[in-house]
Amino acid sequence: MSESFRDVAVIGLGLLGGSVALAARARIPGVRVVGYDADPAVRARAAEIGLADAIADTPAQAVAGAQLVVFCVPVGAMGAAAAAVAPHLPADCVISDVGSSKASVLKALGEALPGATIVPAHPVAGTEQSGPDAGFATLFVGRWCILTPAEDADEAAVARVSAFWEALGAKVEMMDAAHHDLVLAVTSHLPHLIAYTIVGTASDLEEVTQSEVIKYSAGGFRDFTRIAASDPTMWRDVFLHNRDAVLTMLQVFTEDLTELQKAIRKGDGAALFDHFTRTRAIRRSIIAMGQDDARPDFGRDHGVATAPATEDAARPR
Amino acid sequence: MSESFRDVAVIGLGLLGGSVALAARARIPGVRVVGYDADPAVRARAAEIGLADAIADTPAQAVAGAQLVVFCVPVGAMGAAAAAVAPHLPADCVISDVGSSKASVLKALGEALPGATIVPAHPVAGTEQSGPDAGFATLFVGRWCILTPAEDADEAAVARVSAFWEALGAKVEMMDAAHHDLVLAVTSHLPHLIAYTIVGTASDLEEVTQSEVIKYSAGGFRDFTRIAASDPTMWRDVFLHNRDAVLTMLQVFTEDLTELQKAIRKGDGAALFDHFTRTRAIRRSIIAMGQDDARPDFGRDHGVATAPATEDAARPR
Repeated sequence: MSESFRDVAVIGLGLLGGSVALAARARIPGVRVVGYDADPAVRARAAEIGLADAIADTPAQAVAGAQLVVFCVPVGAMGAAAAAVAPHLPADCVISDVGSSKASVLKALGEALPGATIVPAHPVAGTEQSGPDAGFATLFVGRWCILTPAEDADEAAVARVSAFWEALGAKVEMMDAAHHDLVLAVTSHLPHLIAYTIVGTASDLEEVTQSEVIKYSAGGFRDFTRIAASDPTMWRDVFLHNRDAVLTMLQVFTEDLTELQKAIRKGDGAALFDHFTRTRAIRRSIIAMGQDDARPDFGRDHGVATAPATEDAARPR
Repeated sequence: MSESFRDVAVIGLGLLGGSVALAARARIPGVRVVGYDADPAVRARAAEIGLADAIADTPAQAVAGAQLVVFCVPVGAMGAAAAAVAPHLPADCVISDVGSSKASVLKALGEALPGATIVPAHPVAGTEQSGPDAGFATLFVGRWCILTPAEDADEAAVARVSAFWEALGAKVEMMDAAHHDLVLAVTSHLPHLIAYTIVGTASDLEEVTQSEVIKYSAGGFRDFTRIAASDPTMWRDVFLHNRDAVLTMLQVFTEDLTELQKAIRKGDGAALFDHFTRTRAIRRSIIAMGQDDARPDFGRDHGVATAPATEDAARPR
């Protein structure tokens, strides 16, 4: 196995950047991580909580001596972030990122850093939290990280970036950037779009108040609100930068939804039952693959004291 | 506060019926719960795991001496379940249920049990599991239970059913049946329909394999698979029996989705950002109201050993 990197620069210190920094320091012996964020408030907070070995004040400081630079900014900001460090990059430095769309990022990084060694990466992991306090060292453990190097990419660099992500606990897979964008459009981007939509729909109804929606959210709705609480800037950029794949998948989804709508309208119970039976198998496979919690209801606590709600309910009667 | 009931019959011993039986026995001193299920295998299993004080062999035995009969069967089976016990119901016995659609259930129970005292109920609680092994005594703690009695319903019976659900840990709310059906269409039925749809969509793609969908499900998709693993019979019935409200909400959702689709197609980042920002507030309110887990990612374990996936990832490198 290839060696990972010793000097790592992380550009962008939100949930992903913070987690990369913490994971690298926790899991790669002897590594030195320098962090940088364009936002001075984020830099100050990152320094305060010790996200990295050092927090740089400028892009130049951030990449000085770096063997690997990982861009952890929204995909729409990749080009600008790369341009800011471009004049200061050490020779032989390898460039990677954590963006959720890969064709657009490969293009943006390639244009901003002509001639650089670029190995784009997408760790399929996250939470609905964002900002420098949201990161944690185990975010990538057991999750997949997809690398989408160009066909003529430097093989040694690909092997090292691969070793880096494996050191962070991820399982690495290679994929063509365009195929990545299609796969993630269905496993990540479309689900987010749907969740954002239904949460908006429920907020704006005339017949049902927002307070009712909140109170009775345990019937299923609350699950969608988690995803719909994800970072707005990140997701705006994902939809703008993976537009074609998202629109393709959305088209298929809409056709399928129309079919179920028709079954409901016509009272076709057999069609509904058949559809609802098929979808169970997928969850079993996801759990068997270790990609989700097997406990019912995601292991949510039932009957454990939280907010005012439970204090009242737990009173003996 | 009114007294609850001493002799309770639970008809239908799946997730909800089993939880009602276990919760009543755990939380109401001196209660006696008799369980019954039309399926002999379920009755046998319920007896084996001790779901109730007694498991009846017939509907007649189940309701003998009952002060409260709670129907916990799919909403499409309410009429038949009620008809089976109708000749055997004690005088002054109160009838309730746990169905997810209320106008149709009120009608079905009223027709099968003319003259009976009926107080329909819907505890907004559940997991994706089903069957007699799925129930647990704390399912209703801190959750809302909506009662939808007819306008001329017996007030004393309503108070006792209310006390029963409060004893089980729930918070009780009164609602008109038609309004209930509209509220739950958006907080529960539409989310399930959407989840069932997208999981079906992802399973049937030509461009992306099912194995890829499973592997990269942590990007958001896996959340939907939990809901889409819910009981097919129960959900077929919900959509058939709350058809109009579901189709109304689906129409609004589709319009909203089309609007976001248009924003993506036109590259309108401001519209996307604005929408994605508004939806964050709802989740905060749901957590503040104690209706969901405040921990990121539903408190899923990150980096804790589960299936083969993690064993591999945890290997030192």
